[in-house]
Amino acid sequence: MTYPIWPIGRVESPLVELSDAPRQGDEGAPDAVLVFEPTVAAGLRDLRPGMDVLLLTWLDRADRAVLVVHPRGDTSRPETGVFATRSSDRPNPIGLHRLTIRTVDGLRLHVSGLEAVDGTPIVDLKPVLSPVADR
Amino acid sequence: MTYPIWPIGRVESPLVELSDAPRQGDEGAPDAVLVFEPTVAAGLRDLRPGMDVLLLTWLDRADRAVLVVHPRGDTSRPETGVFATRSSDRPNPIGLHRLTIRTVDGLRLHVSGLEAVDGTPIVDLKPVLSPVADR
Repeated sequence: MTYPIWPIGRVESPLVELSDAPRQGDEGAPDAVLVFEPTVAAGLRDLRPGMDVLLLTWLDRADRAVLVVHPRGDTSRPETGVFATRSSDRPNPIGLHRLTIRTVDGLRLHVSGLEAVDGTPIVDLKPVLSPVADR
Repeated sequence: MTYPIWPIGRVESPLVELSDAPRQGDEGAPDAVLVFEPTVAAGLRDLRPGMDVLLLTWLDRADRAVLVVHPRGDTSRPETGVFATRSSDRPNPIGLHRLTIRTVDGLRLHVSGLEAVDGTPIVDLKPVLSPVADR
């Protein structure tokens, strides 16, 4: 039994290579553009500049067979189960990114620091709720 | 182009009917058990009681064709694009739940207040990151 994720858009970013990408969005990631499919336009209509949102992506270059990693790729650190880390290698490689919307231009949302590489599929976007919403 | 989600476990909860479930985990949701598949056991090994985690679920009763809703089902509130709400009805119905691990018993993790109903498929589990803490 599996469930199909339908990409609803793509990330546009100056980050092209995974090796150039910071490990988290608050570690010097560039601004980026979220480009949505016309089919989901109605779902975007209440997003506004300044809103804090959670972006869910599909990390399509991840290795889904990995269950144990060295945190942050540092082999001096002990191996750790992936569910206790933010490794992108994991059975269902969904990226979770906290962002601020800068500008809204139709199907294009300009957002603050995002560590996902160019072309990464977009899965969902949710408003940050306080106090439950964390990253 | 779609990507397959592989459920890695299920929620066990006294909540059986959607109509009984609170809308967010901090609105009186009961404790629950996350029951993982034996195939992902190695990924769980560093989870400990007291850890704050983000649970991702697949809200398998959601309506994936919905793009606009009345927030919290309140028809007195204006219709809003789903990406500006936490509605479970949305194109990719991934639930995001912040929890604290109470106890770990092999493949069974007992967790604090969870608003997902019994049987909900588990997609992923990630640690909560604090801005400077080790990851």
